[in-house]
Amino acid sequence: MPEISQISTNTATVRDRYRLDEILDAVARHGIPAVSPWRDQIADFGLANASKQIRDLGLKVSGVCRGGMFPAATNEGLKANFEDNLRAVEAAAELNADCLVLVVGGLPEGSRDLEGARRQVRDGIARLDESARSAGVKLAIEPLHPMYCADRAVVNTMAQALDLCDAIGGSVGVACDVYHVWWDPDLAGQIARAGKERLHAFHLCDWLRDTGDLLLDRGMMGDGVIDIPSIRRQVEELGYSGFMEVEIFSKKNWWRRDIGDVLTTIIERCATVC
Amino acid sequence: MPEISQISTNTATVRDRYRLDEILDAVARHGIPAVSPWRDQIADFGLANASKQIRDLGLKVSGVCRGGMFPAATNEGLKANFEDNLRAVEAAAELNADCLVLVVGGLPEGSRDLEGARRQVRDGIARLDESARSAGVKLAIEPLHPMYCADRAVVNTMAQALDLCDAIGGSVGVACDVYHVWWDPDLAGQIARAGKERLHAFHLCDWLRDTGDLLLDRGMMGDGVIDIPSIRRQVEELGYSGFMEVEIFSKKNWWRRDIGDVLTTIIERCATVC
Repeated sequence: MPEISQISTNTATVRDRYRLDEILDAVARHGIPAVSPWRDQIADFGLANASKQIRDLGLKVSGVCRGGMFPAATNEGLKANFEDNLRAVEAAAELNADCLVLVVGGLPEGSRDLEGARRQVRDGIARLDESARSAGVKLAIEPLHPMYCADRAVVNTMAQALDLCDAIGGSVGVACDVYHVWWDPDLAGQIARAGKERLHAFHLCDWLRDTGDLLLDRGMMGDGVIDIPSIRRQVEELGYSGFMEVEIFSKKNWWRRDIGDVLTTIIERCATVC
Repeated sequence: MPEISQISTNTATVRDRYRLDEILDAVARHGIPAVSPWRDQIADFGLANASKQIRDLGLKVSGVCRGGMFPAATNEGLKANFEDNLRAVEAAAELNADCLVLVVGGLPEGSRDLEGARRQVRDGIARLDESARSAGVKLAIEPLHPMYCADRAVVNTMAQALDLCDAIGGSVGVACDVYHVWWDPDLAGQIARAGKERLHAFHLCDWLRDTGDLLLDRGMMGDGVIDIPSIRRQVEELGYSGFMEVEIFSKKNWWRRDIGDVLTTIIERCATVC
């Protein structure tokens, strides 16, 4: 089971009731060594403020969420999306993050051109990687569960993400979140294919059997159906030595709770069921 | 675009307000030549009654929904599930259905053993196919969207379903529902791999961009993001000559409407956007 020194808290896990500065303080106070902040939270607090507080608290940054969202219906839209990604790279560099997580984006509004959107994603990542490498930032393509293909990410399996890595090269890798990939019959093979060099992030939560919402009803590890230890072992067998990042969107449960309760539970569950 | 002679109505599409006998009458009255009834509806009406009315109306049966649900936590459970499948084969034979659709089942309650559940599915289908062949019934494994892996079906891609077909042989094939597979980067390749002989059913509906419910918020063709004509052409290029079966679970929209409105819309959408 992961020790506390291996845990990172994705700040979305407690985003509903707490500001980023409060979250950073609480994470450090509980002895969790790392965070993965979201860019809207960073923007609210200010990048320089976030960077200073993270440094002062001695926290590591397992990732920045998120870049991506490449596809667009117009050239102006593509350009705006790409420029936003350049700012995401800057934020990841400033925070010395292990990676910039890419949620690649869904179909442009009104479009049914899935292949076209996937081409825009490939072109966007290839171009962004030039800037990312200059800035010393690793890009991590996060395949999202196929239920997000329309509106959030047209990259939906580890195999597809790794095909992109193969095509683009550079330091592009993947972020593997058990929530998105646990169902995949080819998961073990694709984790092995990724290898240590391309597995830039590993995210934990759980899939609730009675999931009531497509986006905001993730479970705490141990409350759902995912065989987390089995996937964690596959990742460790690669030699993965990054953080185990806990990311839970849970509007009706964990987002309502006190941050101390959430962080204590994360530490306890990592030690017992992951 | 499919002509009316190619359309089948899955009876779940209008199940909330209408009994099976009412549905069969309405389908025939609108000139749609085929149906695919659900077993709970058949049980309510009586198999002999359903069979007689379908024959009297001159309707074809594109499939019976559904067999499957193989996995169980106990041997007694496995046995009960298998016996229910034998009854499903009998119903499909009595109705002279083109196939028995298999929704293979999810994880047994309390289980995280995905590989084990998948083995139970493979063993169940292999054993069932012996009875199905004797009865002249083709089994159609329906890969369900990965969001149903926990509670409804541990077979989630066309590739996985076809791997089962390869392993089991016999007359086992697949049911391809655009709702479940539209996101799959390997869809075209797997449809080609299936071939005419193993594509036992083809189902239509649409994925709504703002899907609000994991089960009961499917869209009418044309209202969502799926490029249906592209998938339909791939299927037709195989030489598929079965029905285009429309299956829409839509609690907040289509289930509330008058059956004439729904069937008229299906005919119009098939002629214009499929």
